[in-house]
Amino acid sequence: MTKVGIASYGITKFSKEDSKIESVLLNSVKKLFDSNSNLNRNDIDAVLVSTNNNSKYLSAVLSEMAGIEPKIAHTVESLCNSGTNAIVSAYSYIASGLADMVLVSGAERYDSPGQVLEWDNSRGEFKHPIFWASIFTKSYKREFSITDEELAIVPVKNHKQAQNNPNAISEKLYSLEDVINSKKLTDDLRLLDCSRPCTGGASILLASEKTCKNCTDNPIWITGIGQKTTSAGFTKNMTFSSMVSTQEAASTALKMSKRDAKDIDVAEVHDAFSVCEPMALESLGLSDKGKGLELINELYATNNLKINPRGGLIGSGHPLGATGLAQTIEITQQLQLCANKRQVDNAKVGLVHNMSAAATSSTVLVLEK
Amino acid sequence: MTKVGIASYGITKFSKEDSKIESVLLNSVKKLFDSNSNLNRNDIDAVLVSTNNNSKYLSAVLSEMAGIEPKIAHTVESLCNSGTNAIVSAYSYIASGLADMVLVSGAERYDSPGQVLEWDNSRGEFKHPIFWASIFTKSYKREFSITDEELAIVPVKNHKQAQNNPNAISEKLYSLEDVINSKKLTDDLRLLDCSRPCTGGASILLASEKTCKNCTDNPIWITGIGQKTTSAGFTKNMTFSSMVSTQEAASTALKMSKRDAKDIDVAEVHDAFSVCEPMALESLGLSDKGKGLELINELYATNNLKINPRGGLIGSGHPLGATGLAQTIEITQQLQLCANKRQVDNAKVGLVHNMSAAATSSTVLVLEK
Repeated sequence: MTKVGIASYGITKFSKEDSKIESVLLNSVKKLFDSNSNLNRNDIDAVLVSTNNNSKYLSAVLSEMAGIEPKIAHTVESLCNSGTNAIVSAYSYIASGLADMVLVSGAERYDSPGQVLEWDNSRGEFKHPIFWASIFTKSYKREFSITDEELAIVPVKNHKQAQNNPNAISEKLYSLEDVINSKKLTDDLRLLDCSRPCTGGASILLASEKTCKNCTDNPIWITGIGQKTTSAGFTKNMTFSSMVSTQEAASTALKMSKRDAKDIDVAEVHDAFSVCEPMALESLGLSDKGKGLELINELYATNNLKINPRGGLIGSGHPLGATGLAQTIEITQQLQLCANKRQVDNAKVGLVHNMSAAATSSTVLVLEK
Repeated sequence: MTKVGIASYGITKFSKEDSKIESVLLNSVKKLFDSNSNLNRNDIDAVLVSTNNNSKYLSAVLSEMAGIEPKIAHTVESLCNSGTNAIVSAYSYIASGLADMVLVSGAERYDSPGQVLEWDNSRGEFKHPIFWASIFTKSYKREFSITDEELAIVPVKNHKQAQNNPNAISEKLYSLEDVINSKKLTDDLRLLDCSRPCTGGASILLASEKTCKNCTDNPIWITGIGQKTTSAGFTKNMTFSSMVSTQEAASTALKMSKRDAKDIDVAEVHDAFSVCEPMALESLGLSDKGKGLELINELYATNNLKINPRGGLIGSGHPLGATGLAQTIEITQQLQLCANKRQVDNAKVGLVHNMSAAATSSTVLVLEK
């Protein structure tokens, strides 16, 4: 099977801007083309849009605006991991031979309809993700004897790391006290524990091995893919203090790439809320069970940017359909050794973890130089 | 590359029923499982939902309701050809090796938001598809000296053929006079020239060659795939009396299957409006340019069901996200020689033509026994 690589990418600043979804899509596509002069729009066989926006036919609209006449064009939606689902779909179009070059463009507006979970009425009126995050937090704290103060390191670290990400929504540092003193939303969650919905776009151009090498001197390859959906409603989860779908996706992705968790030099993990970062690290096998916060503290103390170098969702902002693409772009830049002040030393193998709705589904990608 | 075949399918009655989208999805999936006792839900690697419905995360919701825990799960949207886009995506997941068995489920409600074309403001307030259909009709009539009375054969034929389709919304025969005397919507379109939005669902289970043969004694293979998006707004079309995207998609699909248009024994073509059927036949190469209506009249006079045996969109109804799947199920049944009163003699090679928004994009599939 052909290798599939990343030939170019583009990303917008994440903000609270009130832009049309079509403009947000087009902006990151423009940056993608501007950043690589070897690209020819006529070579693009497919255009996939990743979004929760309710507008229809956006891949045809984007194609027309960007001057592309693709064979394949459609939108992909799976809430917060729409972006990595679209990347995997693009991979399959290329690996199957139906396409040679695929543009994946993710975008969202700050008022995305994907922020309200309408389908799971077992929670009554508690439709906002903060309610599952709150249950996860309570469960995680109880199981591993963790305090709110200890979890507060996650937003402190990620806002700090975001200061070196020119596209991040975060513009300031926060202390542990700032987190603890921020507005209490539920018994277990404060405002600064939450990633923020925002307006943003991110695009990636994927291509087969030969084409990718023709387009860039610095290709990054997708060597591992794992995905799992366990349910739609989190009340069907067996546990609230680990992520079953993430465990399975990581296992599949690492096996496909013939890598082990200890080979991972840099990772973007889906910190939609503070508790998600240690839980994800444990479920990915990047730390032992219950030891995620120890790893985070150790990395923070040594200024090691290995986990969420761009600031994660909490620091960067969370424009749902763009998030998985933004994560993948960060790992690509890390492996290309062009992440500037965010650069992790000697990054050779990277991992992307993107999930939806209380980790009822997860995607894990392994990327390599 | 592995062959990809159809292992099972299920379809609901198309109606004006006010059902929840989740129920419409589940109903056709239940029928799919009921119709084949060799299936094991644990073997399903991916669940793709095809719809224009605004609800999010429907593939995870459907998976949970249907007792499936897939690896890959997301929604695919491309207006009226969402269904065939999802089928092609499923094909690529299997052909790439990322999945071995993929469930594709399409569903729509009668009040689908995909019925209003919001993005192309070049038409001012004329956002309903009848306006592009009206321009197509005027252009086609002028170019080939065709009358309204001549075009009326399309709904007459398709409503007649729908009477043998137990899932069709149409429940009566119409004469040429009925069509001409039906409510005039624009200068060139009457009510009976239009397919009707409706509530309906259709599901297909695709599998790799070996798995497909293990599941069914009567597999049907997808041997040709062609897709093309020329634009999003029909005012960018070069012509209003042929379908450029359909021509290109047909050319690609026939080439892939090593078939010629004259090999096609039975075809489902996207007759969203009367004029679309002859235009599609011409663009697919199933008739000469300007001669589509001659072919339709000839088939009608000899009771030959070759084109749209289930009654097409006009006779069956048009639940957008389900349409491409329903078309593919019809061709599958024809090739399996189990289409009952709709059966076309000696059907060995079948074609599906599914398009969106004034044929700005088209999918063509070739299916074979």
